[in-house]
Amino acid sequence: MICEILAVGTELLMGMIANTNAQYISRRLPEAGAGVYYHSVVGDNPDRIKLNLKIASDRSNIVIITGGLGPTKDDLTKEIVSEFLGRKLVLNKIILEKIEGYFKSLDRTMTDNNRKQAYFPENSIIVENPNGTAPGCIIEDNGKTFILLPGPPSEMIPMMDQSVIPYISKKCGGEIYSKFVRLFGIGESSMEKEIIHLIEHQSNPTIAPYVNEGEITLRITALAKTPQEAEDLMKPLLDELYKKLGVYIYTIGNEDLKAITCRLLMENDIKISTAESCTGGMIASNITEIPGISKIFGMGIVAYSNEAKIDLLGVKASTLDDFGAVSSQVAEEMALGVLNRSESDIGISVTGIAGPDGGTAEKPVGLVYIGLAYKDGIHKIVKSKKFIFKGERQKIRIMTALNVFDIILKYIKSRYSIEEGKQS
Amino acid sequence: MICEILAVGTELLMGMIANTNAQYISRRLPEAGAGVYYHSVVGDNPDRIKLNLKIASDRSNIVIITGGLGPTKDDLTKEIVSEFLGRKLVLNKIILEKIEGYFKSLDRTMTDNNRKQAYFPENSIIVENPNGTAPGCIIEDNGKTFILLPGPPSEMIPMMDQSVIPYISKKCGGEIYSKFVRLFGIGESSMEKEIIHLIEHQSNPTIAPYVNEGEITLRITALAKTPQEAEDLMKPLLDELYKKLGVYIYTIGNEDLKAITCRLLMENDIKISTAESCTGGMIASNITEIPGISKIFGMGIVAYSNEAKIDLLGVKASTLDDFGAVSSQVAEEMALGVLNRSESDIGISVTGIAGPDGGTAEKPVGLVYIGLAYKDGIHKIVKSKKFIFKGERQKIRIMTALNVFDIILKYIKSRYSIEEGKQS
Repeated sequence: MICEILAVGTELLMGMIANTNAQYISRRLPEAGAGVYYHSVVGDNPDRIKLNLKIASDRSNIVIITGGLGPTKDDLTKEIVSEFLGRKLVLNKIILEKIEGYFKSLDRTMTDNNRKQAYFPENSIIVENPNGTAPGCIIEDNGKTFILLPGPPSEMIPMMDQSVIPYISKKCGGEIYSKFVRLFGIGESSMEKEIIHLIEHQSNPTIAPYVNEGEITLRITALAKTPQEAEDLMKPLLDELYKKLGVYIYTIGNEDLKAITCRLLMENDIKISTAESCTGGMIASNITEIPGISKIFGMGIVAYSNEAKIDLLGVKASTLDDFGAVSSQVAEEMALGVLNRSESDIGISVTGIAGPDGGTAEKPVGLVYIGLAYKDGIHKIVKSKKFIFKGERQKIRIMTALNVFDIILKYIKSRYSIEEGKQS
Repeated sequence: MICEILAVGTELLMGMIANTNAQYISRRLPEAGAGVYYHSVVGDNPDRIKLNLKIASDRSNIVIITGGLGPTKDDLTKEIVSEFLGRKLVLNKIILEKIEGYFKSLDRTMTDNNRKQAYFPENSIIVENPNGTAPGCIIEDNGKTFILLPGPPSEMIPMMDQSVIPYISKKCGGEIYSKFVRLFGIGESSMEKEIIHLIEHQSNPTIAPYVNEGEITLRITALAKTPQEAEDLMKPLLDELYKKLGVYIYTIGNEDLKAITCRLLMENDIKISTAESCTGGMIASNITEIPGISKIFGMGIVAYSNEAKIDLLGVKASTLDDFGAVSSQVAEEMALGVLNRSESDIGISVTGIAGPDGGTAEKPVGLVYIGLAYKDGIHKIVKSKKFIFKGERQKIRIMTALNVFDIILKYIKSRYSIEEGKQS
């Protein structure tokens, strides 16, 4: 099956965004048994969209079109595909009701241009969009498949995962089984060096690395007739991954470092509180992304200034004077301070220099101390760890937050003898 | 001048990398007076490269081809372009010497396949590559321009900046001027309804909307000979935009809502502190993304539990009992509480129900109160505003944070009589 991705959107031709949709789809399609041979991008221009549709359908079996499903006049994909295939656009009443319901729930009047989103080329299969008002659709036409998806990645990706990949893999014969092996604490090239022999000789299962802000996920995909066959196909590869990279693997599954850490905190009823300087609330914000987290998270303190460290966390002025705000001593007093102040089981703290200014030879930009305080019977224990991160301000903050979750996860696993992730 | 970007490389079709080269080139070309109408990507396959070259040269004046200039067997771009144009590949001795010198300086032996990099289609203009061994070239052929550049962005970008942009702008004679009009508080379709007459009749200047998490940017682009001519062309359109959408326009320029708010806080030395419940640190984290912000931000409190609201912010237990944690009364006590606790000029607070659980008929998921407390002489003033946001937990939190910045920005502008953005 030859597949082609056609992205519609002037914002791509203006260079406002990169075509990450094409990248994502290209990564996923081989798992479903389809190969991507071409990408193309065209603006919101009817003639040029038509021209590219013609080119694509002449040379490919499956044409995936992203973008142009919104409510505005610029959004033309359905109209042009209909015209190209000689089909009428027909109203889908169920979708219309959903869109109307959406606006009613917002207490806003639906405009006529939103009605447009309920029209589809005749005999389309609707692809539901749980994260927006623009559903997609699949059209089978003369042995060619046209798949229309919205442009925003937050809408396109779930639709791809939930509807399109299963549809295409059924077309290609066979089913797709995937596992996600999740790693933290190793860089991309070191990881690749360890498993290059596996990457170079992959066929079934396949192995594909995804890197996302400090975390690496290896997606292992087997094409098989039954779940058991898939398990059997994957086992030798998983064993080899554990042999080479086991120390960095924190789970096999869909949860990232933040999600798994917060789930284990909740499951084990471990109350946590945070004291942040350079991350400025990012760790608390990450924790409170998780629904139901109020069970174990009650307070966080962003102590950016020295005064706030003293007033809110009880850090001693003399510690600040003697060692400076960015020091293991201050990190430890911050962690203990927030543990004392809250009714928590763990207090976590961060102090560092996120830059771009404020660094010195002795204390460079990227220097961060993470503190961990916890109760051990009637005692309180506190530890800290020093890091030096490279990169820009926001990257340093994100790497700090990730390492906080790594430290908490390791603490929970060792303290509560939890062995997560050996199997999904 | 119609320009098209053809990227050659199987790694793009495998989704290993995104086509950021196309994005970079697309951003730069309009400045040189050329418009990018198409992107395409093809693998390292002679027939498919030739097919795409034919398509591209039929419809575009300038074809920029990235990738495939390396020393390996896979790198075929120059060979195929030569064949396509019916030109011989000829050795460029100066380049050969440079490549030999490069290897000598590394104390490495040059292999035969590196010699390949010194061959170019007859009558090419060489584009020097200061960061690698693969020079590019420009070929003028029958009124069409073919520009070949290497794939690695670290090599391609400097060649684009130093050689290609000047070459193309000389060809085009004319320049592109852009302004970004930034709006908040209006949805995409309502915005379009207001200015549909402008969008439908655009020519020069053009108007293009971009939507990013609650914020809308309109890019106004004029093609002109001088900056003054561009200003004159844009003025009637900008006047019309202010007439229709003025109340939503918060600036003209490159800064988003968060960046401009923080800049004005710093410029006017307005100290701020935050008291967050449902956003759980996101607002403090957004504020501390900005370098140098410690000048005006010293502390933030994440008071997720009622106990934290009482202990850290001085919210009265009776207020929590009488009105509930999600109420205007609690929002106001939180804002006043953090203002009292800190040495700030503004205290901002948030309390709400981010969901997915915790909503009731009376207080649904998405209900949020934002509080603003500030000093007015010896008095302290506090206000609050009610919002109902739709969507998932994280979307509600993000919309809350954006509205906090909107409230702060409006407060600064009215209090300090700042008129931002009327002109860029």
